[in-house]
Amino acid sequence: MKTIGVGLVGCGTVGSGLVRNLSEANRLLQQRLGVSLELRAAAVRDPSKQRADLPVSPVGDWKSVISNPAVQIVVELLGGTTESLEVAKAAFAAAKPLITANKALLAEKGSELIPLAQQARVPIYFEASVAGGIPVLKALREGLVANQLLGIHGIINGTCNYILSRMAEEGSDFADALRQAKELGYAEADDRLDVDGIDAAHKAAILCLLGYGFLPPFAKIPIEGIRKLEAQDVSFARQLGYVLKLLAVVRPVGPDRVEVRVAPTLIPARHPMGSIHGVFNAVSLVGNLSGPVQFTGRGAGPDATSSALLADLGEAARHLRDQSPGPVLSAGDGKRRLLEPGESVGRFYVRFEVRDQPGVLAQIAGIFGTEKIGISSVLQPEGHGADSVPLVFLLEPAKESALQKAVAAVQKLPLNRSPARILRVEDLA
Amino acid sequence: MKTIGVGLVGCGTVGSGLVRNLSEANRLLQQRLGVSLELRAAAVRDPSKQRADLPVSPVGDWKSVISNPAVQIVVELLGGTTESLEVAKAAFAAAKPLITANKALLAEKGSELIPLAQQARVPIYFEASVAGGIPVLKALREGLVANQLLGIHGIINGTCNYILSRMAEEGSDFADALRQAKELGYAEADDRLDVDGIDAAHKAAILCLLGYGFLPPFAKIPIEGIRKLEAQDVSFARQLGYVLKLLAVVRPVGPDRVEVRVAPTLIPARHPMGSIHGVFNAVSLVGNLSGPVQFTGRGAGPDATSSALLADLGEAARHLRDQSPGPVLSAGDGKRRLLEPGESVGRFYVRFEVRDQPGVLAQIAGIFGTEKIGISSVLQPEGHGADSVPLVFLLEPAKESALQKAVAAVQKLPLNRSPARILRVEDLA
Repeated sequence: MKTIGVGLVGCGTVGSGLVRNLSEANRLLQQRLGVSLELRAAAVRDPSKQRADLPVSPVGDWKSVISNPAVQIVVELLGGTTESLEVAKAAFAAAKPLITANKALLAEKGSELIPLAQQARVPIYFEASVAGGIPVLKALREGLVANQLLGIHGIINGTCNYILSRMAEEGSDFADALRQAKELGYAEADDRLDVDGIDAAHKAAILCLLGYGFLPPFAKIPIEGIRKLEAQDVSFARQLGYVLKLLAVVRPVGPDRVEVRVAPTLIPARHPMGSIHGVFNAVSLVGNLSGPVQFTGRGAGPDATSSALLADLGEAARHLRDQSPGPVLSAGDGKRRLLEPGESVGRFYVRFEVRDQPGVLAQIAGIFGTEKIGISSVLQPEGHGADSVPLVFLLEPAKESALQKAVAAVQKLPLNRSPARILRVEDLA
Repeated sequence: MKTIGVGLVGCGTVGSGLVRNLSEANRLLQQRLGVSLELRAAAVRDPSKQRADLPVSPVGDWKSVISNPAVQIVVELLGGTTESLEVAKAAFAAAKPLITANKALLAEKGSELIPLAQQARVPIYFEASVAGGIPVLKALREGLVANQLLGIHGIINGTCNYILSRMAEEGSDFADALRQAKELGYAEADDRLDVDGIDAAHKAAILCLLGYGFLPPFAKIPIEGIRKLEAQDVSFARQLGYVLKLLAVVRPVGPDRVEVRVAPTLIPARHPMGSIHGVFNAVSLVGNLSGPVQFTGRGAGPDATSSALLADLGEAARHLRDQSPGPVLSAGDGKRRLLEPGESVGRFYVRFEVRDQPGVLAQIAGIFGTEKIGISSVLQPEGHGADSVPLVFLLEPAKESALQKAVAAVQKLPLNRSPARILRVEDLA
């Protein structure tokens, strides 16, 4: 049996998990795939620190890991997008397959990285970068390979889903739910990547790459996090039969555009995605032949991430053994690009804060009518003439630019009290 | 680009679907995998029948399809286990990879078939045999390859799930729900394979093969269908917080046994599997690293099945192009065998029909106590002294043999009116 040498660059929480799980998993890989892995070199931030968990003496210089002739596969677990990019380039230059869990690297530097890998004919494996222990990239790339993808929807940030689940179940406000998430270790001290939707957008960009063959310019993806959500919107959503989730959407629009977006979104409470609670992730892929296929599981944590990294290691080792080329990143049909902002068509939830006076509903409904936006549902709690009461509209499909125009017009009315809250609605397949 | 010749044996509903979808899918396979497929021969039951859908002249003799030098991959879609076995043997003898959707063939003849394929070093692909458009076998074999599997649970017969969904939603009885299923084309005229659990057991055997490396002797798998279910049990289950599903269970017991079973089972209504309604399928795989990973989608239909067959065709073509060996069927650790009947430990729901008289609950509870079976919950609708009323117990985990002993003892009591209804309970991860 062929033993394949592995070099590890970066050994924090995820790397330590991989090292801890490697020997038991290797027994399974031997049995199931006929390949064997051995960790032969590891680079860490501080090589002077005692690392009883590592079977090799760690070094500080990752270049020596990559150039080590006993290393045939490089695993990059540094995180970030600067040094990790150099690691990837060095691996390609050395013709060594790269395995990474680094979604930021792929989403933000992929347009530099991927052509380099293609030129060097070195495969990159990155199952661990999206939805942790759920093998959704393999499903997208291989299982549904014969399908035109009609859309991808994902609840792919466990921190946000935990916070939104607390808000829904306990009626707590965002700040309380975030505090609980931090206490339980579900949110980092610096919560911005998760809470502001950046992490989910990194993953959405990767889903777009595999589903539609191009990487959208990261800076142009519309991203909205959950920081401004209020408990009342969670509650109004429920009254309308929906739940609020941070949803990533990747969907073809017409023959040559793809909408990629991350935003807090109302989805039907009865849909299976509506019952994804806590830190769990879910991704729904809709194929023209397969129909909707949904994947649910743990999106993070060292063990779930190890599961994906080890599957990639097994696959990379098998391709090395067989001298086969490994997966290629399809260029798709080369015609698709990111949808322009404002061109998006969808359903919206809009909450206004208005003075409770006769005629307010008619005035606002009239403005929606002028923009030809149908109204599906209205929630108007009893206001008793108060100066500021919520008035909630669930709308029929409309172009985002028309919606923005209508909302701007309402906000100019004297009865309007504060900026409207606009949320997306997705009815899902 | 390499074009791979395909030979089709059997062209009923599934085969016609494959042919219909082949050319569009082939464009995607070219783009995404760099391989191209061409249907070059097809055997049908009645070659005299006009087949405008086929791009080749069909023949009656499948042997000529396999021996055709332009055919490099054989797709077997005959169904059944007799002629299909001959087709598979001929494909192996001709060293041509076999793709099949035939779960009966694999589950009932796999112990003959698989060694032949292994000796001939010819890969078999059978993603379409379990859960249609959901790529769950690939996930099991590749995505979770580094995991010890702690269990597999599946709702893998759409006909039964449709019937049970109708019974739950409308309170209809089995016969009415079956009639509706037939009217809508969700159940075949001969409903036995589906309704009596055979089809689900075929799939469970295949899940056991991939998850635990051995094929259980099909005749020894405990199989119970849904034909005897009564509306009242669906209703009592709901009152207890559960829903009734036909559940396939494949689960390791101790170091060397695997429990494989198909039975109507109470699962928690709040679990994501509890919200799988209608003809949809769901499979949950619990890996020691990944945690529970659940897959949901369409389990049947010509398009969903095409999705899986075409993915297998793409993979087989890629392996032929790269001259790599293709997936092997792991022998597992060689130590595991099917659990003996009676050794199964689980939770049970038991409904007795008894005379409503003082002391009945105490007598039955005493019998469970003698067998050391704890009682979690009791439903005793008001009986007003009637001669026969239901009395429902939800029990703590017990060995099946102890449960059977207790139930037999209750059935001997003078107050017992008819045979008890015993159902499995699975709380799921």
